[in-house]
Amino acid sequence: MKSLHLHGQPVAGGACPLICTPLVGKTPAAVLGELAVVLPKKPDLIEWRVDFFENIGNTATVIDVARRVKKAAGATPIIFTCRSINEGGERIPLNNAEIVTLYVDVCVSQSVDIVDYELSNLTSNLEQIRRASRDNDVAMIMSYHNFQFTPEAAVLSAKFMDAEQLGADIAKLAVMPKTPEDVLTLLGVTWRASETGGIPLIGLSMGGIGSLSRIVGGFYGSSVTFAVGKASSAPGQIPIEELRAVLATVRKAVAGS
Amino acid sequence: MKSLHLHGQPVAGGACPLICTPLVGKTPAAVLGELAVVLPKKPDLIEWRVDFFENIGNTATVIDVARRVKKAAGATPIIFTCRSINEGGERIPLNNAEIVTLYVDVCVSQSVDIVDYELSNLTSNLEQIRRASRDNDVAMIMSYHNFQFTPEAAVLSAKFMDAEQLGADIAKLAVMPKTPEDVLTLLGVTWRASETGGIPLIGLSMGGIGSLSRIVGGFYGSSVTFAVGKASSAPGQIPIEELRAVLATVRKAVAGS
Repeated sequence: MKSLHLHGQPVAGGACPLICTPLVGKTPAAVLGELAVVLPKKPDLIEWRVDFFENIGNTATVIDVARRVKKAAGATPIIFTCRSINEGGERIPLNNAEIVTLYVDVCVSQSVDIVDYELSNLTSNLEQIRRASRDNDVAMIMSYHNFQFTPEAAVLSAKFMDAEQLGADIAKLAVMPKTPEDVLTLLGVTWRASETGGIPLIGLSMGGIGSLSRIVGGFYGSSVTFAVGKASSAPGQIPIEELRAVLATVRKAVAGS
Repeated sequence: MKSLHLHGQPVAGGACPLICTPLVGKTPAAVLGELAVVLPKKPDLIEWRVDFFENIGNTATVIDVARRVKKAAGATPIIFTCRSINEGGERIPLNNAEIVTLYVDVCVSQSVDIVDYELSNLTSNLEQIRRASRDNDVAMIMSYHNFQFTPEAAVLSAKFMDAEQLGADIAKLAVMPKTPEDVLTLLGVTWRASETGGIPLIGLSMGGIGSLSRIVGGFYGSSVTFAVGKASSAPGQIPIEELRAVLATVRKAVAGS
């Protein structure tokens, strides 16, 4: 798997997979309160899911909170994500153009390290945020989520390729399995894309059986896994302490023979 | 996954997957010494790998040790396995006919609960041991091991079907992956066979990356996983205490969403 680099440095010294915990607070106090609970658990990345934030319509407030999160988080990089309602996010009062403007303003403020924006958006919007992020040393995840089912392997592979062609620094897929075999499909696609592609990937299968991918994904080319710090942001996330313990055992087993 | 039944009862109350630890001692004292270390770790099954036993040529001694193992193990069922050198076992002084006779005599002695015999043997030999085991209330695993590579899915599926058609109570595959994708192949085959077949299955991928199958196999229809009690019998086995802790976390994660 490829390690994530930010500002020219490998994140968490190149650890793989990185563990990211989400923040899903509705108010500045709630977000910062979550952060205070999460930080002692030493995640490698923190994702602020701004679609949960009530005052998302006030860009100055959003940037102020992002700055306070970043300051408190110190060296731990912050991902800024406005997940759309179509891909598992919360209902928000912004239209697509306003969301793009928010992303651009946040990039310009340099108050976060990474932005996550969905591949399903207009290419022109993806390109606009790509420019703003690149100009401001902010990395960009281009992502695809499907909370209903796991598309077939060829469709998933194409998403990873699309992201790389559109200039993503990181490509992310998160899909819902209907059977245990769907988890294998996601892992296989992630593995083959990691063998052929040039950027770090995140491949996740969600829900109960999908949680297996949160444990073994690192061995299939997925550079980041998501765990619960205080509250989960997607089904199947495992508490960070438990995930870290499991990953340590699994790593030892895989390395041991 | 199908739970294992022995003597009309589900093993370990129907727990899934069962954890089996091997005994690989060369002498009676070594085997019983291993057993004393292993039993407090409460495996669900114990496999005596008699191909490691120096005095394998003396049937009376073998049966005597099997009886002592069974008595010490109490309710924990014993698998009797003479793994062939072609499938990862030790070099032994018995020819094929003598091995068949040993299996039959051990079945008649009723000193073990399960025998494991390889599918690669002559059908007439498999049938002979099948009859002796059935007549003496001993269950029979029919197994296929490949320490070199992972055959393609169709070949692996056929092994599971062969075992069921030959009357096995349990079918076992253990194969070596060359890539992480080979582990997915083994898991996928095991899952599909468990959906279509009628007997409990064991599907294992060996070695470093294969150890992932020892953790997640239970969710793909594999009824038994093998762990190290005192000494491992195949590459990639995880210490039983660690495996049990990981399985508890994984089970909770899979059930939780």
